[in-house]
Amino acid sequence: MAARKYRIGIDLGGTNIKAGVIDDENNILVKKSVKTLPLDRSWQEIVADMATLTRQLLAELSIGIDECSKIGVGAAGMIDHINGIITYAGNFGWTGIPIVTELHRYFDLPIRIANDANCAVLGESVAGAAKGAKHILMLTLGTGVGAGVIADGHLQEGGSAGGMELGHTLLVMDGEECTCGRRGCLEAYASAASLTRHARKAAVAHPDSILNEMCKGNLANMNGVIPFKAARAGDETAKRLVDEYIKYLGEGIINFINAWRPEKVLIGGGLSNEGDPLIIPLQEYVRPRCFGGEKGYVAPIERAVLGNDAGLIGAASL
Amino acid sequence: MAARKYRIGIDLGGTNIKAGVIDDENNILVKKSVKTLPLDRSWQEIVADMATLTRQLLAELSIGIDECSKIGVGAAGMIDHINGIITYAGNFGWTGIPIVTELHRYFDLPIRIANDANCAVLGESVAGAAKGAKHILMLTLGTGVGAGVIADGHLQEGGSAGGMELGHTLLVMDGEECTCGRRGCLEAYASAASLTRHARKAAVAHPDSILNEMCKGNLANMNGVIPFKAARAGDETAKRLVDEYIKYLGEGIINFINAWRPEKVLIGGGLSNEGDPLIIPLQEYVRPRCFGGEKGYVAPIERAVLGNDAGLIGAASL
Repeated sequence: MAARKYRIGIDLGGTNIKAGVIDDENNILVKKSVKTLPLDRSWQEIVADMATLTRQLLAELSIGIDECSKIGVGAAGMIDHINGIITYAGNFGWTGIPIVTELHRYFDLPIRIANDANCAVLGESVAGAAKGAKHILMLTLGTGVGAGVIADGHLQEGGSAGGMELGHTLLVMDGEECTCGRRGCLEAYASAASLTRHARKAAVAHPDSILNEMCKGNLANMNGVIPFKAARAGDETAKRLVDEYIKYLGEGIINFINAWRPEKVLIGGGLSNEGDPLIIPLQEYVRPRCFGGEKGYVAPIERAVLGNDAGLIGAASL
Repeated sequence: MAARKYRIGIDLGGTNIKAGVIDDENNILVKKSVKTLPLDRSWQEIVADMATLTRQLLAELSIGIDECSKIGVGAAGMIDHINGIITYAGNFGWTGIPIVTELHRYFDLPIRIANDANCAVLGESVAGAAKGAKHILMLTLGTGVGAGVIADGHLQEGGSAGGMELGHTLLVMDGEECTCGRRGCLEAYASAASLTRHARKAAVAHPDSILNEMCKGNLANMNGVIPFKAARAGDETAKRLVDEYIKYLGEGIINFINAWRPEKVLIGGGLSNEGDPLIIPLQEYVRPRCFGGEKGYVAPIERAVLGNDAGLIGAASL
């Protein structure tokens, strides 16, 4: 019998299905993606694509499935990690999809599924910015705010579907509407989408702000990067925007430090590419405000390093 | 060699030091308490009292220390559970007290220390309202808001001192000042002390409210029970107060459900004695507002049942 030294990681997104073959040192030997579209296909067709993609990767490496120990899937949405079910995925309009059972029709291996942000922190913990750490918090700042926590070496997924949805913890009582239906969630203030929305409002309120110019006069061009660029150029409106953004994100991080006291806080997702202009003031905001002040250990805030690979490696490590 | 079938639980509070001998079925065989005062004694003297108390209990039961497997201490404050140190305890004015090392001068047994609210959830999980559950959230509503979490069967204490301080997670951006120095913490809205404070304000603003009468005209008599009593008597001001209280506490619980997805949420502490008039509307507030709505499992909210014994049994179970 062949040694099972490879694992498969799959990232099921609304745009692409990505998959990779990972070796026992957490290297991605090969990865590939196909379009997920059209989203209104049956979920069985999408799972069939996941299986085909996996077989293509193995063929490319001349690796047999009997050399693989397991398959992991990361997916956006509310995941029942215990029963291997996508409880709810808004991008697909899916509820109660038994993804693991369906994948088992193709592969006779242990198969697990988890929320994609949970996979990301697991990936960074085995192969990325938090290698070796046992207590990690990671926030992924994209369209939403994804979160993953590792406590005492264990990925935290909650007791049932929909755990560790830290983007959907309230920060502002009766605050702005969140995509989840609640008001005042962290995601409504700290996602790239919310920064974009706030930046549009600020640009309208301050016609002299360089924010308008940077959008070439069309606020549809606004994104989460422009406010940082404008702030660096000295624009006062943009500086206030960025300061506010850091305050809200920082208060969220303080909440999570007061809960988990991680060794490291990682920031991933598109906005993390801002680097120091985001990370340094964020660290300065957070450090003095955690419970116990300087009596306690406050984790350094760092950029995640694996990008999208974190999800693949993490899924393969479930 | 004798079988080590007993454990010692100690609860170190600002008013009393309590200790109990617990058997292998989590019964408290005997318990005793002594005054902690004066608080300005040396910490060595207080540890000596803890040791004396323990020996008295064992003598009373004619149990030898060689029949005990371990000692656990629950204490208020910021606890370094890893190194057995009280990092900071405001009621004693202590910082960096090596309590476990000092106790080892008296007893050659495994000794652990944890935050008292963490001990409480552990106690309820082994012998109380959440027996058998693997995912539990417990909030203790007293002068402050204590919190304890069990995830996947493991007591969550954080990666370093000051973890699981869920009472000190922000709920209201730029909100009321909290005892911890931060603004807008759950504790500033959901503790018995904060309810008392808010009730005093409401009584002043509404001289016709029965709240005033129930304080016998002296607002120093206000406490966390009176608003509930006044609301049951039909007082509109008190009803609004209680509704607000439930909303803030409820939003905190929703945050924690969105993180841990516990099987059960337990409410302990003085205010939990209100029972159904607190628990039922709280459950009604929380149920429809958690992430994923009815697609997810929302834990029942129940009263803790062990009272102060939870801390002793939990400490002995560390």
